Formats: sequence, structure tokens, C-alpha cells
Amino acid sequence: MNFGTIYGVGLGPGDTDLMTLRAHRLLTGAQHVAYFRKAGRPGQARRIAQDLIPEGAAEIAMEYPVTTEIPLSDPRYNEILSAFYADCTAQLRALAESGQDVVVLCEGDPFFYGSFMHLHSRLKEVVQVVVVPAITGMSAAWTATDQPVTWGDDVLSTLMGTLPENELVRHMKAADAIVIMKIGRNIGKVRRALQSAGRYENAWLVEYASMPGQTVQKLSETGEKVTPYFSIVIVHGQGRRP
Amino acid sequence: MNFGTIYGVGLGPGDTDLMTLRAHRLLTGAQHVAYFRKAGRPGQARRIAQDLIPEGAAEIAMEYPVTTEIPLSDPRYNEILSAFYADCTAQLRALAESGQDVVVLCEGDPFFYGSFMHLHSRLKEVVQVVVVPAITGMSAAWTATDQPVTWGDDVLSTLMGTLPENELVRHMKAADAIVIMKIGRNIGKVRRALQSAGRYENAWLVEYASMPGQTVQKLSETGEKVTPYFSIVIVHGQGRRP
Ligand SMILES: C[S@@+](CC[C@H](N)C(=O)[O-])C[C@H]1O[C@@H](n2cnc3c(N)ncnc32)[C@H](O)[C@@H]1O
Ligand SMILES: C[S@@+](CC[C@H](N)C(=O)[O-])C[C@H]1O[C@@H](n2cnc3c(N)ncnc32)[C@H](O)[C@@H]1O
Repeated sequence: MNFGTIYGVGLGPGDTDLMTLRAHRLLTGAQHVAYFRKAGRPGQARRIAQDLIPEGAAEIAMEYPVTTEIPLSDPRYNEILSAFYADCTAQLRALAESGQDVVVLCEGDPFFYGSFMHLHSRLKEVVQVVVVPAITGMSAAWTATDQPVTWGDDVLSTLMGTLPENELVRHMKAADAIVIMKIGRNIGKVRRALQSAGRYENAWLVEYASMPGQTVQKLSETGEKVTPYFSIVIVHGQGRRP
Repeated sequence: MNFGTIYGVGLGPGDTDLMTLRAHRLLTGAQHVAYFRKAGRPGQARRIAQDLIPEGAAEIAMEYPVTTEIPLSDPRYNEILSAFYADCTAQLRALAESGQDVVVLCEGDPFFYGSFMHLHSRLKEVVQVVVVPAITGMSAAWTATDQPVTWGDDVLSTLMGTLPENELVRHMKAADAIVIMKIGRNIGKVRRALQSAGRYENAWLVEYASMPGQTVQKLSETGEKVTPYFSIVIVHGQGRRP
């Protein structure tokens, strides 16, 4: 008997029309469909795939352990997540070893700050793992602003809102074009950093890029509200152009 | 009579299986298909679309004026290109104003260092322009290395090989993960910059990502050859992971 393959399938930023032909084919032909989700939530990747998962496909919901009470710096945080990924790995590995293919749903591009990376690194030595790239959330976000993100030899830096404020400022000053992800509760810090770096007036906030409820606003016109998890800030480059 | 729409359609990095459902539908239903190319070359976007352009669709090849003799800094360079883009704009605008839709083929994502941006900025005030995002060349390149490009709060910087060497070094030192595009004849400079920044040993060279002839090599093992236009250098981030 042959082993099955684990497919880490990028679904793109949200709109199923922005899924690749390959992802669409793998998904609509899947017998086992796995995805991460937070306890009690449907999971974004699962939501994108909603209308395409074949009837009768077995679903494997990999539920993140609750870690909100534990600071990132606490060694227990890593231990709990490690144990969780080891569990997920064992489950997928067993399926592959019994000859089954598994499609793991990934929001955006799997290798770009994705959760699947944690399974990929654990599985790839033992079973066949194939990754299908996809449109990132940031591509959908800059497309939603209807302005190119980079021209000529603009430098684009992608920053996480979880970085310390001084790091954010340093990188925002050095780059021509800026993308900021993982904003959520970090929005206040992100605003201050953009101000210190002199980039605030040109920053755009895109919520739910290519998803239902998409919004595009100048960040300076958004007031003090907290942004959803699926938010991206874009500062467009202004490089050379004929 | 209604005006037509100009679609800037991202075709993705090369493999037609990595095209989106939307791009595929627009392309296979197109009556007018436009694309840039260098004189005497088929044009990469045209090559990707090869088997999908409907029979009977009218093709508009927009041929770059030859500028290799003129340095970038010479004002004539910009003048010649400006005139070229104005010509292309007039041609597409006339089609749209006569009620025709036009699909403009774009390699990768249109708003990420793409040529279509020069038409978009000129057309968008006068006719309806719709941009369809796509997988970038860099996503295909890091997928080809079979390693995630960014973890945790890694900073990713995207750099053009056309930048001055000292700028390259400065940005390479500051970033966790690095993508370098537009390499070609700049490969010597890119190598030296990576060496000065202490990033050379971890750099990968991907040629023709997801295209026929794809290669993936450690940059330090590639010898002194010149790389093709469709080459990307990747230095993966090593950020936090449980
Ligand atoms: C864990 S990262 C996953 C990134 C994903 N793999 C990708 O390729 O875009 C999650 C962050 O991506 C950003 N993001 C991804 N897709 C998005 C979308 N459609 N709209 C807005 N933000 C998005 C948000 O900043 C979010 O906090
Ligand atoms: C003018 S830029 C266009 C980028 C494109 N819009 C994108 O989204 O990737 C051209 C550069 O993109 C890079 N590139 C784009 N697609 C590629 C591919 N499939 N393989 C290797 N390099 C690629 C190369 O570095 C090339 O010099």
C-alpha cells in the first residue's frame, strides 16, 4: 500500500474566486479536510472553503489550546503549543500512513506567516507534504486600495503589529512601502509608530480584504476603534515611474 | 452604449494551475487580450496565457521601445517610456469607449512592481479599470524552496537588485527574511551585498519559479553565472516557533 500525501493548500485571502485552479481541484476532490480553528469559532480557512468541501468528506478540526492567560514569554506557552502541534502531526501522519490524502486548509499563502508551517516542519521528514501557494492577504489588501504598492526599486517591508514599538518605527522609517499585519489590539502601538516614523498620513487600513465586510479607509480617518484580526495597514511606495 | 472595462488580470507566477478561478474565467472569455513584450520576444504573460486565449480573440501586443542604449538617469529614457505608455493608454481607452472589454495580461500580481501599473494610473480616471490580484513570483519562489519564508514576527524586506550596493547591504542587515528580485546582471552586486550583510550562506536562488525550467539552489553553490530575468533570491526568516 502507498502512503498518502498531506497537501497544505493555500486558499487565498478570502474570496473563493481568488482561489487557484489547483486549490479548487484538490479541495473539491478531498476525502479528508483538516483545518485549524480557535475553540468555539468556525475558523477562517474553513469558512473560505465552506461551499467547496465535498459532501461526505471527513473533517478534522484542529482546535488551538487556549493560551490567552499565558504570556508569550512563559515557557509553558511554547510547551502547550508544541504538544498541540505534535498531536495534530500524529493524527495527519496516521491518515497518510494508512494511504489517505489529507487537504489541510490554509488562509492566504501557507508559507507566509501561516499555521501550517508548524505541521509542515514536523511532517516533512516522515510523509510526503505538498504545499500549494496562494494569494496573500496583503495582495488582496493593496488591490482593495486600488493603488499599486511598489514602483521602480521601492523597498517593501512587511511588519507584524506584535513587534516592539521602537522596532516598528525603525523599519517604517527605512522602507519605502510598508505592510503591517497582525494588528488587532496592537493598533494603538501601530498608529504611534507610524506617527513617529512620519508615515501616518499615508497609511491605509484594510479590514477583511476580499472577504464579506471588506472596508478600505485612510488610517487617520478611522477613529480609535480596535481593528479585527483580519486587518492590514498599507503604506504605498512612491518610487520612480515614467 | 455602455463603456467597456479594462481588466488588469494577474496570471500568477507561471504555472497556469496557479491562476485564480477569476483570472481563468476572464481570460477564457476574452475578446481583446493585451500584453507587454520586448521587441522580438513572445512576452512572459502571453506565454503563461498561451493555451487559454480563446480562438478569435484580438491580440494587442504592446512592444516596449528599445531603451538599452539610454541610461536610466537620462531624461530621454522617461520621455520615451512616457510616450509609449500614453500610446498604449490611447489604444485601450478607444476600445473601452467603443464598448469593448479588454483583458490585460500581467505576470504575477499586477500591483506588485508590475508594468500594468503604468496603464492603470493613466486609465483609471477615464474608464473603468478592474485589477485582479494573483500569486506573486516570490510566493512561488519560497514555495519552491520547500521552506516557510517568515515565522512569528519576522520582518520581510523585498529588495530590487537594481538598488545601489550600500542600500542593499543596509536593508539586508535590518531584515529577518529577504526577497531579492530583478537580479539578472545585478547578480554580482547582490552576492557582494549578501556577503557584506552576513546573509550569503543562507541565500537561495530560484530561477523560473513554477515555470518550465525551474531551479532551486543555494546561491553559494551556483558559481559565477548570470541569472535569467525570472530569478529571485530568498533568505528565509528564522523567527520564533514552538
Ligand atoms: C497568521 S497571519 C496569516 C497570513 C496569511 N498566511 C497570508 O498569506 O496572508 C494573519 C494575518 O494576516 C493578515 N491577513 C490575512 N488575510 C487577510 C485578509 N483577507 N484581510 C485582512 N487581513 C488579512 C492579517 O493581518 C492577520 O492578522
Ligand atoms: C517587474 S517584476 C514583476 C513582479 C510580478 N508582478 C510579481 O508579482 O511577482 C519582475 C521580477 O519579478 C521576479 N519574478 C516574477 N515572477 C517570477 C517567477 N515566476 N520566477 C522567478 N522570478 C520571478 C523576478 O525577479 C523579475 O525580475
